Amino acid sequence: MTSTFDIAIVGATGSVGEALLQILEDRDFPVGDLHLLASSESAGRTLAYKGRNLRVRAVEGFDFRAVKLAFFAADQSVTLAHADAVRKAGCSLIDLSGALPGEQAPRVVPEVNAGALEGLEAPFALTSPSSIAVAVALVLAALRQQVQVRRLVIDAGLAVSSRGREGVTELARQTAELLNGRSFEPRLFDRQMAFNVLAQIDEPDAQGHGRLERRVNEDIKALFNDASLNVAVSCHQVPVFFGDSLNVTVQASSPVELEPVLAALDAAAGIELVDAGDYPTVIGDAVGQDEVYVGRVRRGLDDPSELTLWIVSDNVRKGAALNAVQLGELLIKHHL
Amino acid sequence: MTSTFDIAIVGATGSVGEALLQILEDRDFPVGDLHLLASSESAGRTLAYKGRNLRVRAVEGFDFRAVKLAFFAADQSVTLAHADAVRKAGCSLIDLSGALPGEQAPRVVPEVNAGALEGLEAPFALTSPSSIAVAVALVLAALRQQVQVRRLVIDAGLAVSSRGREGVTELARQTAELLNGRSFEPRLFDRQMAFNVLAQIDEPDAQGHGRLERRVNEDIKALFNDASLNVAVSCHQVPVFFGDSLNVTVQASSPVELEPVLAALDAAAGIELVDAGDYPTVIGDAVGQDEVYVGRVRRGLDDPSELTLWIVSDNVRKGAALNAVQLGELLIKHHL
Repeated sequence: MTSTFDIAIVGATGSVGEALLQILEDRDFPVGDLHLLASSESAGRTLAYKGRNLRVRAVEGFDFRAVKLAFFAADQSVTLAHADAVRKAGCSLIDLSGALPGEQAPRVVPEVNAGALEGLEAPFALTSPSSIAVAVALVLAALRQQVQVRRLVIDAGLAVSSRGREGVTELARQTAELLNGRSFEPRLFDRQMAFNVLAQIDEPDAQGHGRLERRVNEDIKALFNDASLNVAVSCHQVPVFFGDSLNVTVQASSPVELEPVLAALDAAAGIELVDAGDYPTVIGDAVGQDEVYVGRVRRGLDDPSELTLWIVSDNVRKGAALNAVQLGELLIKHHL
Repeated sequence: MTSTFDIAIVGATGSVGEALLQILEDRDFPVGDLHLLASSESAGRTLAYKGRNLRVRAVEGFDFRAVKLAFFAADQSVTLAHADAVRKAGCSLIDLSGALPGEQAPRVVPEVNAGALEGLEAPFALTSPSSIAVAVALVLAALRQQVQVRRLVIDAGLAVSSRGREGVTELARQTAELLNGRSFEPRLFDRQMAFNVLAQIDEPDAQGHGRLERRVNEDIKALFNDASLNVAVSCHQVPVFFGDSLNVTVQASSPVELEPVLAALDAAAGIELVDAGDYPTVIGDAVGQDEVYVGRVRRGLDDPSELTLWIVSDNVRKGAALNAVQLGELLIKHHL
């Protein structure tokens, strides 16, 4: 007899919420009762799970004592509004929004720092890091077996799906208008997104850094528990529908031997290393896949201690929903 | 009385060649006779210059003694095939292909290292650097007034126009096919370019670096005559028609003061600094403009000696044709 767990998904109608539902089904997660929750505007819709149609209810007023585990895949404000009630209800929480401080809800990528759960007890609260941090951390975990990493420069080209379904619709609309020679007023994005690269994806702070850039920086240092790491992050919005395209330049403390690094990447769980000469892209490789794809691994032209890699990843799957479900599986092992 | 100079443009029918023609006209370059040259396939076409229609002739068999200055805006093989004949004809040469070694044809960006012409005599041979190097060098020249730069990480998103007019046509074709739900076989690019980011733009060498990546690295070190500079370059092809989008992370030898750096960028010739909080993009800012646009200037999150900037530039104008014409103007001052 296998035990099952009653579960809530908050933000079920969003693209990450729907991916969560699909991945719970695909991985045969031991789901008992399943409660799909969303804002009151989205309540009333139905979503399919294992052939059944489940009705989405409003998260407002939901009694979290009804479930053992809640996934939060909505805005940070939603997590902040309900985190206390969830904990008081004795329910464990996996947050994908990054709303909670690390002391309250440690950031975990199972392949990287599953040990962070040691000593924790139910009800648990974990954070699934930003999709960029998940992808980079998987790669960095493999690299750190071979080299001591001192500095990272991450240049991230984010697909418009990072802005949800509206981002996808808006890129398609702008592109169609342009190809038909019609002018348009941009929506959602602050300017033309089609055939353009936007230098920032959210409002920068007084120092010029965006919220996601700061989040990626903090996620990576936390995942490796290494405050001495220097992490520079630039997030750009590219006219791509799905998937993150990342260029990462690593500075190690000593010259890098390429062969053992490639061997470590090749052997690492969750990573698909592409042959030298070839390279992966979001289309045809990463999108819809669980693995993070890595290619173009090369040493610096001027510095043998420098390494540059290209990483593509499905921002909705391993970057978000899959990692969160894997955290749920980890919690079950820790006696959820 | 102003003297005029008889001029040849090799590669006149390409997009850079046409931009050269336009910029010579716009800047009232003292052109005497103008010879438009191209491969034998393109010979016979006509191009407009100052209201006259000029016939394009084949470069094969052209006698360079007829001109004082030749712009080479074709493939490297074309420059290599004719450079000796040009020199023997006593004709000066400005090469945009990067075919010639630096000792033979120094790389020059007028705002950066006009001094490289000191001691040279006619017939001159100069190289107009790669468009990425031109844009980065303009910014770096301003930065170097304030900080000692040790390391650069350049992530370059290149428009499909870097592949000429065929690149533009192919992105438009792929995009239209996809929006109409039709499948297609990619041409020119090795895979789907529409709504995708390609990790490399040319065939990488045994170390994994592309030809343009090496060229940018060498260009930048040569422009500043600084072999100690570490320059990491990654070139990606983005689904954008025109303009380079560059993310540059600079490591200085000491903590960076932001105010004087911004003041130096603001005062620099050829640079348009965009206000903090805002940012430039190729569409609406850089494309069609002579200036290189700079924004998102910010210090590192973990390292005050680190600086990140966003640069957008018209790859055909300042990146190529404009810089080449400026080199011509410089040669006139040096008694072409």
